[in-house]
Amino acid sequence: MDPDQVIGVDFGGTSVKWAVVEGSELLTDVHRIPTRDFDGPDPLLAAIVDEIQSAREEYPGVSAIGIGVPGAVDFARGMTYNLTNVRGWTSVPLRDQIRERTGLPTVLDNDANCMAYAEYKFGAGQGCRNVICVTLGTGVGGGLILNGDLFRGSTYAAGEIGQMSVDLNGVEGPYGNSGALERYIGNRQIEEMARRMYSERGEKIPEDTSPEGLAANARGEDATARAVWNQVAEYLGSCLMSVVYLLNPDAIVIGGGVAHAGDVLFDPLKRNLQASLTEECFHELRLVPARFGNTAGIIGSSALAAQALERDD
Amino acid sequence: MDPDQVIGVDFGGTSVKWAVVEGSELLTDVHRIPTRDFDGPDPLLAAIVDEIQSAREEYPGVSAIGIGVPGAVDFARGMTYNLTNVRGWTSVPLRDQIRERTGLPTVLDNDANCMAYAEYKFGAGQGCRNVICVTLGTGVGGGLILNGDLFRGSTYAAGEIGQMSVDLNGVEGPYGNSGALERYIGNRQIEEMARRMYSERGEKIPEDTSPEGLAANARGEDATARAVWNQVAEYLGSCLMSVVYLLNPDAIVIGGGVAHAGDVLFDPLKRNLQASLTEECFHELRLVPARFGNTAGIIGSSALAAQALERDD
Repeated sequence: MDPDQVIGVDFGGTSVKWAVVEGSELLTDVHRIPTRDFDGPDPLLAAIVDEIQSAREEYPGVSAIGIGVPGAVDFARGMTYNLTNVRGWTSVPLRDQIRERTGLPTVLDNDANCMAYAEYKFGAGQGCRNVICVTLGTGVGGGLILNGDLFRGSTYAAGEIGQMSVDLNGVEGPYGNSGALERYIGNRQIEEMARRMYSERGEKIPEDTSPEGLAANARGEDATARAVWNQVAEYLGSCLMSVVYLLNPDAIVIGGGVAHAGDVLFDPLKRNLQASLTEECFHELRLVPARFGNTAGIIGSSALAAQALERDD
Repeated sequence: MDPDQVIGVDFGGTSVKWAVVEGSELLTDVHRIPTRDFDGPDPLLAAIVDEIQSAREEYPGVSAIGIGVPGAVDFARGMTYNLTNVRGWTSVPLRDQIRERTGLPTVLDNDANCMAYAEYKFGAGQGCRNVICVTLGTGVGGGLILNGDLFRGSTYAAGEIGQMSVDLNGVEGPYGNSGALERYIGNRQIEEMARRMYSERGEKIPEDTSPEGLAANARGEDATARAVWNQVAEYLGSCLMSVVYLLNPDAIVIGGGVAHAGDVLFDPLKRNLQASLTEECFHELRLVPARFGNTAGIIGSSALAAQALERDD
C-alpha cells in the first residue's frame, strides 16, 4: 500500500463527493453520489463503499480514507451527531462502518476542520503555525490550526466562529446567542441587507442580489453594493479582531462562496483589522483567500487520514 | 539541586514579590521589593539578584527561576516589551540578565500566562485540558491553556480577552478596537456604571462604589447594586460565550479583584452562558473562581520554570 494515496470523501447536503488523492493532488476526477437518491444512511453508505471498493481496484495502493461531514462529530468515537441538510444521520458510527466494510483506516471530521487542515497543509496557510480558517456561505463556519495542528476543543466543537457575538444586544442566533456573526453575514442575510440598503437609498434593487451579483456590482460603479460589502467587512472584521486578540494567529484564511467577492470584501476587511489591532499583531498577520474551493473537503479529509497514518507509525 | 525547588518572581507596578516554591507550596514568606525605590531596571535588577542569592544560601537546592511581568514579553528571547505601570522596562533582556547573574535556568512570561498556568496546574482548572483564565481588575487580562499547555500565539500576544469586542459599535478600546470588553468591566468602568445607575434611578450613590463595596451591597437588599453586577455579567458573558464557541474549553477560571464579588457575579454569568451556549458546550464547562489570589504570579512563574526544567531533561 502507498501511504501517500488516500481517498477523501466530502459529505454534502446535495452530494457525497470523493476522489483518490495524493498530497494536494487529485488522482481521479471528483465523483459525486447524489445524497437524496438514497433513503437514509444505510443505502447511501452501501453506495459509498461500493464506489470506494471499485476505486481500489484501479488504485490498489490506497491506504486510508478521510471523511468530512457538514456538522458536529465526535472525533474520538468517529460518530456523526447530526448533519446539516442531511436527514437521518444522527449518531451514526460512520467512521467504523466505513472502516469495517473497507478494512482501511478511516478518519472522520467536520468539513470546516477538513478545509482548515487543507489550507494549512497545502494551501493559503502553508508555512504558518496558527491559522484561523473561516468559511462564508449559507452559514459561517471555522476551523483552527494552533501550534501546527488542528485544534478541536474539549468536545470537538471548537471553531464555531459563526456563533460568536459581534453585538451583545444584537440579533439572536440559533442557540440564544445574541449577535451571532452568522445572523449578519450569512448568504441570505447579505442579500436582505442589500435589498434594505438599496430601498433606503431610494435605488432600484438589482435583479441579482446574490453575493456574486453584489460583488460584480461593487467592482463596477455601484456605491450601494460597495456599501454592502463595507458593512459585511465591519461585522466580519469585528469578530476576527476578537479572534486575533484571543489567539494571536499568523494567518487568517477566508473561504466559502461569499469569499469569492475578492477585493471588495478583503480591502475593507484589511483596513478594519489594521485600524483595530495592535501594530505588532496586524503586522504578523497574513489575511488571505482560501486556495482550495470545492475540493477543500476532499483534500483536507484525505490529508487528515494521511496524518493519522503517520502518527500510527 | 532539587528540581522541585524553584524561585517564583512576580513583577508588579508597586513591588516585585518573590518566594521559594515547591509545587504550589510556598517554602518562604512572600518577600517584597518596592519597585519605585529604584531608579530604572539596573538597580532594581541588582536588588532582585541580591535577594535571590541570599535565598539560595538558605535553599541551596533551588534549581530555576520563573518571572512573571505585567505586560507583553517576547517569550523566545526572554525580553520584556514594556511593562504596564513600570517605567523604563522597554526591551529589557530580563531573562538572560537574571540567568547570567544567578547561573540558574530562568523563564520569563507575562503575568496572565503565569496565573493561567498556576490555576491549570494546581488550582481551579486542575484536571481540565482546555482552560480559559480571565483576570478582572483595573484591566481585563487572560491566559489560555489549550491541549494541556500554555498557548502563547504567534508573537506571544494571545489571551488578550480584555481587547475582544462585545459590540462592534461600542466604546473605543486602546487600539481603536471598538467595544473592547475592558472598557465596560474594568474596575473604574464598573464604578462609573454604578454611579450612573444609582443616579438614573434617583437613588443616593453609596460612598463605596468600588467593586468590593458594590458586591457587599448586592449581597444585601440593594437592587441597584445587583443590577450593576447583572450588567457586568452580560458584558462578560457575551465575550465568554464567543470564547467558548471558538475554543470549546472545559473550564473558565475567573480571578482578579473584581472576581471576589462571588455569587453576585457568578450566578448571573452562569445563567447568561447557559442561555446562549449549546447544551453540550455548557454542560461540559466548569465555570469557577480562581483558587490563587496574590500568589498566582509566584506559583505560576515557578511552575513554568519547573516545566522548562522537565522539558530540557
